Amino acid sequence: MNIVVVNDDGWGSAGIRLLAKEMTHMGRVIVIAPDGPRSGYGACISVTTPILLRHVEEHDLNGAEVYTTNGTPADCIKLAREVVLKDQPIDLIVSGINHGSNASINVIYSGTMGACLVAAEKGIPAIGWSINSHAADVDLHWLQPFLLEITHHLLEEGVPPRTCYNINAPVGEIEGIRWTRQCGGHWTNELDPIEGSSSKEYVGAWKLGGEFVNDEPDAQDTDIWALDHQLLSITPILIDLTHYGAL
Amino acid sequence: MNIVVVNDDGWGSAGIRLLAKEMTHMGRVIVIAPDGPRSGYGACISVTTPILLRHVEEHDLNGAEVYTTNGTPADCIKLAREVVLKDQPIDLIVSGINHGSNASINVIYSGTMGACLVAAEKGIPAIGWSINSHAADVDLHWLQPFLLEITHHLLEEGVPPRTCYNINAPVGEIEGIRWTRQCGGHWTNELDPIEGSSSKEYVGAWKLGGEFVNDEPDAQDTDIWALDHQLLSITPILIDLTHYGAL
Repeated sequence: MNIVVVNDDGWGSAGIRLLAKEMTHMGRVIVIAPDGPRSGYGACISVTTPILLRHVEEHDLNGAEVYTTNGTPADCIKLAREVVLKDQPIDLIVSGINHGSNASINVIYSGTMGACLVAAEKGIPAIGWSINSHAADVDLHWLQPFLLEITHHLLEEGVPPRTCYNINAPVGEIEGIRWTRQCGGHWTNELDPIEGSSSKEYVGAWKLGGEFVNDEPDAQDTDIWALDHQLLSITPILIDLTHYGAL
Repeated sequence: MNIVVVNDDGWGSAGIRLLAKEMTHMGRVIVIAPDGPRSGYGACISVTTPILLRHVEEHDLNGAEVYTTNGTPADCIKLAREVVLKDQPIDLIVSGINHGSNASINVIYSGTMGACLVAAEKGIPAIGWSINSHAADVDLHWLQPFLLEITHHLLEEGVPPRTCYNINAPVGEIEGIRWTRQCGGHWTNELDPIEGSSSKEYVGAWKLGGEFVNDEPDAQDTDIWALDHQLLSITPILIDLTHYGAL
């Protein structure tokens, strides 16, 4: 079994190291990760710049091979198919473990999930993993036993066409697993002014920040509700964005 | 009426100039566009770099105001809401006219549509326009009369929650308008090696290219089918990506 591991936090983050190591119990693991943070990249692809690939020596990952790229998480999928695993099937792509939730609307912004959308486009089963904390040293040991168990289960069930999975884990003890839908939500107060940045040349400069607003706080079938109740959330994601109800 | 015009080809492309000029017949127009090409950026946001905003003097756009940014198409929506139109309502966001089709799976890669997804997240009506040619000097005059007509129609109908529109126009005479769904499709042969680029430091370097494969060539209700038959395609796009059928 050929398993490709990607992420958007970049190679070396605790989340991708754990995920890669766990996956070696299922098959041959090839890590292809950005060489630095690509949070918020969505399904961005490198149209205007060359995509470089580097091999990295790693001896602490149960034999997983590691590559890094200056490209995006979405580019990693293309490098996996056409360069590193050229002419070999890819049986599974796992993305993450992202440091930070990708619940609700964040699926469109997430590089972690962007890579999964691209995998789904190629017909490759893909699972995105995120934990509800941005801390680099977040405690992942509560999540660890679920990584192989859920992956096995989803592959055995069979992944529907044009579909991938968005899995979000709470921090701390996991009290159950819930199938969920994407919660309605939006971001506000997103731009923090950088003081003293305005000039003759620029109107100003801002740092991206923001507050997430849950638009459905009372709904009990959403990914956010699951996270708020110490449940691991699994949302099937469809890459056909047509609003059939509106057609 | 406050109308924000964005794109991913960058300020100065023929498509955005025409769209901005036409929209001045409906209300006050503010253009906020990337300062260069951002094709393939999807809903990418600038998490790791400051976002700068510049005012541009323009006297040939029926009074439209113009700003540019080093940021992404998605960032443009945030700048519109929180900086340029701070405390004022935005009644409509139009994106494009993109030089190149955004039919089928390209909705996830498209910066033009990425901006629309973000607008839909904020509850702002948004319409993405694309024409099926990458030529910088593509003849837009066949499309021009539809810009105001369709915009009026969609706003009068009312935009459903969490929805935006992906409109793709054929090149040349437009023989009708069709409501469509997103065609199944995928990309292949995407990485073109850059000759002589491998080194001790890199495995290699690639340019992003690729061939689009239509997975549903016989379906007659898709965006691609409409384009192939000289019809202007309108696809309603939902930002809830949950695969309800799989739940």
